[in-house]
Amino acid sequence: MSVKVTIYEVALAARVSLATVSRVLNNPEKVKPDTRERVLKVIKELGYRPNAIARGLASRKTTTVGVLVSHITRASVAEMLGGISDIAMKYSYSIKLFSAHEDVNIIELINDIVAEQVDGVLILNDELDASRMKKVKELFDENEIPFVLANVVNDDRSVPSVSIDYEKAGYEITKLMIEMGKKDIYMLSTVRKYSVNDKKELGYTKAMQEANLMPRVFRTSGTTSVNRQHFANFFADKIIDGAIGVRDSIAVSFMNIANESGRSVPEMVSVAGFQNTKYALLSRPTLTSIDIPVYDIGAVAMRLLTKLMNKEQLDSLQVVLPHYIVRRESL
Amino acid sequence: MSVKVTIYEVALAARVSLATVSRVLNNPEKVKPDTRERVLKVIKELGYRPNAIARGLASRKTTTVGVLVSHITRASVAEMLGGISDIAMKYSYSIKLFSAHEDVNIIELINDIVAEQVDGVLILNDELDASRMKKVKELFDENEIPFVLANVVNDDRSVPSVSIDYEKAGYEITKLMIEMGKKDIYMLSTVRKYSVNDKKELGYTKAMQEANLMPRVFRTSGTTSVNRQHFANFFADKIIDGAIGVRDSIAVSFMNIANESGRSVPEMVSVAGFQNTKYALLSRPTLTSIDIPVYDIGAVAMRLLTKLMNKEQLDSLQVVLPHYIVRRESL
Repeated sequence: MSVKVTIYEVALAARVSLATVSRVLNNPEKVKPDTRERVLKVIKELGYRPNAIARGLASRKTTTVGVLVSHITRASVAEMLGGISDIAMKYSYSIKLFSAHEDVNIIELINDIVAEQVDGVLILNDELDASRMKKVKELFDENEIPFVLANVVNDDRSVPSVSIDYEKAGYEITKLMIEMGKKDIYMLSTVRKYSVNDKKELGYTKAMQEANLMPRVFRTSGTTSVNRQHFANFFADKIIDGAIGVRDSIAVSFMNIANESGRSVPEMVSVAGFQNTKYALLSRPTLTSIDIPVYDIGAVAMRLLTKLMNKEQLDSLQVVLPHYIVRRESL
Repeated sequence: MSVKVTIYEVALAARVSLATVSRVLNNPEKVKPDTRERVLKVIKELGYRPNAIARGLASRKTTTVGVLVSHITRASVAEMLGGISDIAMKYSYSIKLFSAHEDVNIIELINDIVAEQVDGVLILNDELDASRMKKVKELFDENEIPFVLANVVNDDRSVPSVSIDYEKAGYEITKLMIEMGKKDIYMLSTVRKYSVNDKKELGYTKAMQEANLMPRVFRTSGTTSVNRQHFANFFADKIIDGAIGVRDSIAVSFMNIANESGRSVPEMVSVAGFQNTKYALLSRPTLTSIDIPVYDIGAVAMRLLTKLMNKEQLDSLQVVLPHYIVRRESL
């Protein structure tokens, strides 16, 4: 009969508030002696053991991981947070969220994160160029705060990260189209630069050049309605038989335009996207897409961070998770 | 020339780490006297003023808001977190994330949140039935921790919440279909119960009954591939000329099935969804949907919470934000 006793049951039995039980555990000197004795007696009787979070408080050790996100409104980030919070919960870390907007000074934000005395940091922000990333690394190293990049790519091998091989994925999907006989293949990317999109473009360009084809990257905003107009104007007079969107939503947006302007997908134009989201399933035709294990990236990044925080010996600081192409009607 | 001086510049000028500056501010007794004097001199010279977060640390007052989410992987939650974190940043509160899974004991989780000594809590969890919600309210009240429900509906007027009028929205979209001459209108809802979906159903049922039509709620899982099969089987032999999905993705999923089985949308069946997500824009035909200001709900909920934490006088504890119907091709 090892039923887990909660702090709530202790509070109930001792007829005090949860805050009082918490104080007895963490700041006993602040509790009136008779109350303190009553609570301690109940704790002993019920066999209550404070959980890891409470123990963390008791020993004055923070057990908090800072998570820095930029585009929090994007679905992929939400799913990644799911993986992060599951593992954080398992290891009894709590998560503090920091949100970086376009107009936020990232260095100042990192300083705020440091000032909050977190034990480690996950960086989901994907808009740090090399020089800013160097600065961020310096700040964390200086303060001895371990950090891990999640779904962000960095060529510096000393920077811990968890991601897929985006260059390889870009190469593979392009090669697949080339093998199907496609020649005028465009990559549909974003105006804003992201490390992972740079890698996708790199793989695409490599595959095109190997086949002696001209790589052409078309950049649009991430906004669906803008993309539509943008695509319609740009591709009106272009020869195109393949298109790879850096995101599913961009690929679907292009696919709709293509079909509506008499270039049927997949008969005349092959289309593929990245991420294998619901968009790929709900579009008509359904969209071929690179599956990226976003939840797993979050979970593994959090796990890697726990190891770094525990100063465990690690074989490699950069974890590459597998990806695969999900074939559907569009290709 | 009131350039904002950061803690980073203080550290740089005093040739110490950020952690040391932080210690000088918060635990000066732990810093060697000569270092302490040097840092304090630089702080004075540069005119550095620790920001609100640092001041919070200094005065040992936590300035943390707990955010309880259930389906963190859903896009709407991500957008809501955007609104929450923007306002939290503005008021210098930091956010601690708590994630409730299906198998998590919610009461235990609330106890953990209480133990973390947060100043207030936002609840985005939408699976609390009335009795559990009562318990949650008791726990927070007992510990004097203010909380606000965000995009969760509660009939108890003493529970602070920010949401739209989901019943009214359900009523309006149904009435619109009825006025167009539709008679066999189904509501496509989820097997799992959510407070907001209950309200949508209530509004739908009211509009149907007022028009002497039979309300029929079809329940499916939230999974796209399951929905497809489910819809195909169920509606094979049914008469149906209208369908309202409680989410856009469910509506699009149904719309695809309808079109593929020769019931063209909108000619034979009118379809509408809730939330006005990207799905509604990317689907073919495009989907009529109820726009819900998810970001605003997060931002207003956070703002309401700051007022409650400051014990400000409030006219009403329940804020209802406006919604509107975005007409597109499907209706």
